[in-house]
Amino acid sequence: MAHYPPSSADHRFLLFDVLDAGTALQALPALREADADLLTQVLEEAAKFVAEVVSPLQATGDAPGCRLEDGRVLTPPGFAEAYRAFWQAGWPSLACAPEDGGQGLPWVLEGVLYEMLTGANHGWTMAPGLLHGAYECVKHHGSPELKARYLPRIASGEWLATMCLTEAHAGSDLGQVRTQAVPQADGSHRITGTKIFISGGEHDLTDNIVHLVLAREPGAPPGPKGLSLFLAPKVLPEGVPLPPPPGEGRGGGTSTHNFITCERIEEKMGLHGSPTCVLRFDGATGWRIGEPGRGLNAMFVMMNAARLHVALQGIGLLDAAWQKAHAYARERTQMRAPGALRGEGAADPIVRHPAIQRILQTERAWVDGLRVLAYRTGLELDIARHHPDVQRRASAQQWCSLVTPVLKALCTEQGFGGASRLLQVFGGHGYVKEWGIEQIVRDARITMIYEGTNEIQAIDLLLRKVLPDGGAALAELLHALEADLRDDEDVQARFAALREVTRTLAAESAHAPTLPYEAADDYLRSVGLALFAWAWRRIESAPGAASARWREAAAAARLRILPEFELRLQILRTQCEAAAAAQAAPVD
Amino acid sequence: MAHYPPSSADHRFLLFDVLDAGTALQALPALREADADLLTQVLEEAAKFVAEVVSPLQATGDAPGCRLEDGRVLTPPGFAEAYRAFWQAGWPSLACAPEDGGQGLPWVLEGVLYEMLTGANHGWTMAPGLLHGAYECVKHHGSPELKARYLPRIASGEWLATMCLTEAHAGSDLGQVRTQAVPQADGSHRITGTKIFISGGEHDLTDNIVHLVLAREPGAPPGPKGLSLFLAPKVLPEGVPLPPPPGEGRGGGTSTHNFITCERIEEKMGLHGSPTCVLRFDGATGWRIGEPGRGLNAMFVMMNAARLHVALQGIGLLDAAWQKAHAYARERTQMRAPGALRGEGAADPIVRHPAIQRILQTERAWVDGLRVLAYRTGLELDIARHHPDVQRRASAQQWCSLVTPVLKALCTEQGFGGASRLLQVFGGHGYVKEWGIEQIVRDARITMIYEGTNEIQAIDLLLRKVLPDGGAALAELLHALEADLRDDEDVQARFAALREVTRTLAAESAHAPTLPYEAADDYLRSVGLALFAWAWRRIESAPGAASARWREAAAAARLRILPEFELRLQILRTQCEAAAAAQAAPVD
Repeated sequence: MAHYPPSSADHRFLLFDVLDAGTALQALPALREADADLLTQVLEEAAKFVAEVVSPLQATGDAPGCRLEDGRVLTPPGFAEAYRAFWQAGWPSLACAPEDGGQGLPWVLEGVLYEMLTGANHGWTMAPGLLHGAYECVKHHGSPELKARYLPRIASGEWLATMCLTEAHAGSDLGQVRTQAVPQADGSHRITGTKIFISGGEHDLTDNIVHLVLAREPGAPPGPKGLSLFLAPKVLPEGVPLPPPPGEGRGGGTSTHNFITCERIEEKMGLHGSPTCVLRFDGATGWRIGEPGRGLNAMFVMMNAARLHVALQGIGLLDAAWQKAHAYARERTQMRAPGALRGEGAADPIVRHPAIQRILQTERAWVDGLRVLAYRTGLELDIARHHPDVQRRASAQQWCSLVTPVLKALCTEQGFGGASRLLQVFGGHGYVKEWGIEQIVRDARITMIYEGTNEIQAIDLLLRKVLPDGGAALAELLHALEADLRDDEDVQARFAALREVTRTLAAESAHAPTLPYEAADDYLRSVGLALFAWAWRRIESAPGAASARWREAAAAARLRILPEFELRLQILRTQCEAAAAAQAAPVD
Repeated sequence: MAHYPPSSADHRFLLFDVLDAGTALQALPALREADADLLTQVLEEAAKFVAEVVSPLQATGDAPGCRLEDGRVLTPPGFAEAYRAFWQAGWPSLACAPEDGGQGLPWVLEGVLYEMLTGANHGWTMAPGLLHGAYECVKHHGSPELKARYLPRIASGEWLATMCLTEAHAGSDLGQVRTQAVPQADGSHRITGTKIFISGGEHDLTDNIVHLVLAREPGAPPGPKGLSLFLAPKVLPEGVPLPPPPGEGRGGGTSTHNFITCERIEEKMGLHGSPTCVLRFDGATGWRIGEPGRGLNAMFVMMNAARLHVALQGIGLLDAAWQKAHAYARERTQMRAPGALRGEGAADPIVRHPAIQRILQTERAWVDGLRVLAYRTGLELDIARHHPDVQRRASAQQWCSLVTPVLKALCTEQGFGGASRLLQVFGGHGYVKEWGIEQIVRDARITMIYEGTNEIQAIDLLLRKVLPDGGAALAELLHALEADLRDDEDVQARFAALREVTRTLAAESAHAPTLPYEAADDYLRSVGLALFAWAWRRIESAPGAASARWREAAAAARLRILPEFELRLQILRTQCEAAAAAQAAPVD
């Protein structure tokens, strides 16, 4: 069995039968060609590529993984060939604009492609996964010269890119970044500093690597407002005058080699197929992207898309774990199942045992419901980019802004936690490397951390997106979803409870400044579960959802997943009551 | 900082101030000497040994880990020396009977010792962890000759032991075991078969290894009733006649080397310090322990103690993860904390941020409450062994029988899940090996699987312990606990709800044979949370619990942990209602 055969039938059912993606996309002039037939055809080709080229490299990616030799990173055997095949087939530029050499297909398609790729091989997928953010960033903020030189090659995937943000003392708190960028007479900058946790900071997949580096110009104010963004390539273009070498033993190589050194690759829990680099910039040549002091803004242009990518990684990993566990449970026989589940032999396949069915059905329901939410958000990203009506673009932007942090946290929590539950299906065999399930658990753990930890997502949602307008934007979003399923009392009741707790939180937060921070994680989870309830109602109202496959998953969602909504609300209400009581109490 | 400084003050507070362990133990004639002073002194010595000798080997245990060379397993550098120091200091025989050379101290002390050891170094601790079960097994079922030859050396830890149960096709379902044991004229048996997942099946820690092997004699009935238990040592005593060698290239070595070969050690997700062996028995010489066909019974004598050991592993791992995360959160500064939590600098230690406090406080509350339950169960084990009153021994046995599966599942679920939440405190640094937190997460994952998967524990609880007497034994246990805290309405309400749902489950299961299997996991969790509520009330009613340290954890238990009880009940009620409706529905 291939490590991960993508679940193409489910993709089609959820995109077209449940979400009617073809109709939604064809309403956008730029995507008029993107009907269900074309999208299906591309998805089938993608699934084929994923299964045949990327999926077989999954185990190799874990061991031996990447190695650092003399400052050069060697990726695992087969990775470079697979990447060459990937970009030469045009996959990176699927959703890039035609004027940049892209194919102009919808973002949601790119999203599904990356979901499949991650399920098949998370480590390998990290490399191309990063070029999309760099593309958006250079496209929207780069000077015409930078765009001419770099944009087409980033779009095509001929050159890969990195985001160099974190420093040892500056992780979630980028305002503490210290890397310096000193302007030169020719308009370039000399960049000096050390960045850590740089995915794909060095590798042998492409001839050049385009680093986007957050740094501070001399005299810039402290904190986030003093940060600018710079583009510093691994290999400089011919004819760019190099500064005098900054010292012995630094940089080196050919004269066009920039002064950027990979000092170390991290030993990680998983994701060994993706080199996580410590990069030292020793007066490296770079050029500013966008205005001085607007470095974080230049990056934020791509944040929703990047976070949605991570959410889809969680889904892909969970689906891959599910496929593996399901296949194992059908083969492995242990003990006789109870009651009507019992077969004829001395032992039944464990897929007949309720303890195993419970795990498989619950995680199946998670994958399905999360897919609906993530694909719907992908469609909204397309609408936000391409809809002719400014109002509709704004509401799509609103959707992405509110729902993306929820999905990033919810999908990655489940990607890891659900994969671990699915490991349990294997018993002791799940703990040994041979079956590949423990690798998924280890790989998946990082998704809860990178692209903003899940705790940061929760603060983003409640503190930055919901509370500033007193919950008005969220209420509007819920209202639109209710209209979608007007007669559904269960979803209406959940939404009403969510609106109510949002109002209470807003009121109490006015006098209890720590309350929203204390409540943020449970709040995100309650929003996520309310949306999840909506997603499942959408699935159930689609033609074709009456089959046992979908009814079984729907039942698991209702029985085993959705009750957590009430639990979260209870925790939130208790916190609000405590804040109110503290407010009412006389000060001693 | 040492990898894991054991939390001795908490041990003392929970054992003596909350559980009054000294009084309980001194009521047992065999343990009259075990007053709080003596126990405290032993615990302090243990903590010192753990911190100085075992804890420094934690990282080495992970990498390089164990290696197999020419059929011999080499443990990581330092492991053998540390083990020698351990047994020579008498730690293995702490709770063994004085007549076997042991020190006759209470089991609960051994439990706390192993909790500390596992927190400090799970991989190393696996080796001695296994000798206790073998000691009980040989002591209660071995022939006088076998006891004379093996018991003192197992008790002292001079020789380590294994449990050879699992085969490739027989994991949870031991009835499928195929290994053969053919009786010989001299009373010995020739054992042939291949066992997998044998922890410590081969190593260089001791001169000999005593294997306890589940096998089937010729003509034995199929299934579990045909299984007998055999003792087969790695090195045979001088003078035991060897059978003709079974073939080329097998066994080998000196003439006293038994025909047992380590074919492979597994590559695992974690626990690299403990070799997990595939052992091939090629007509190995062994001797039966106990009656033919009673192999599983001979093992079950030690099951409660072994499972409680695993529960304590979960607690130790969670506490080690907590200590690491807490230390990191006090050092690491990122962003300013909100409201009154805000300090003076440009960034606060993250321990001041509510998102981090939420994680630390919740996991702290888990460790504390689980410790009370596990130590109390350890005391009951001592009472079951030593109490002069037969009734009291029986009620203690009842407690162990009911609570042990609950704790095994609850503590190991939290050991892994909680360690993963604590990893989140480190952000990206948690994912790299350097900080040691990801190792704990990987190591902890196995505890949910071995010694009976957590799903098996749930079935054991509901199907074998609770339903057969209609919940009477559980009701009695809850009643005794209520008496303990007579005026606590919260605990009383939870216990009442639990009794009610138990009655309903028993009633509906009569006509719905799959229902208890479907409900088992949620049922175990609801019993666990009800006991956890009791444990926290016990803590809160102890003198000294009024300090901020304990009040903060108590608040986290109430706000963030205990509400899950209601969630589990709701799921159980829904399942019972569905079963009742199916029963009431007319058959089409």
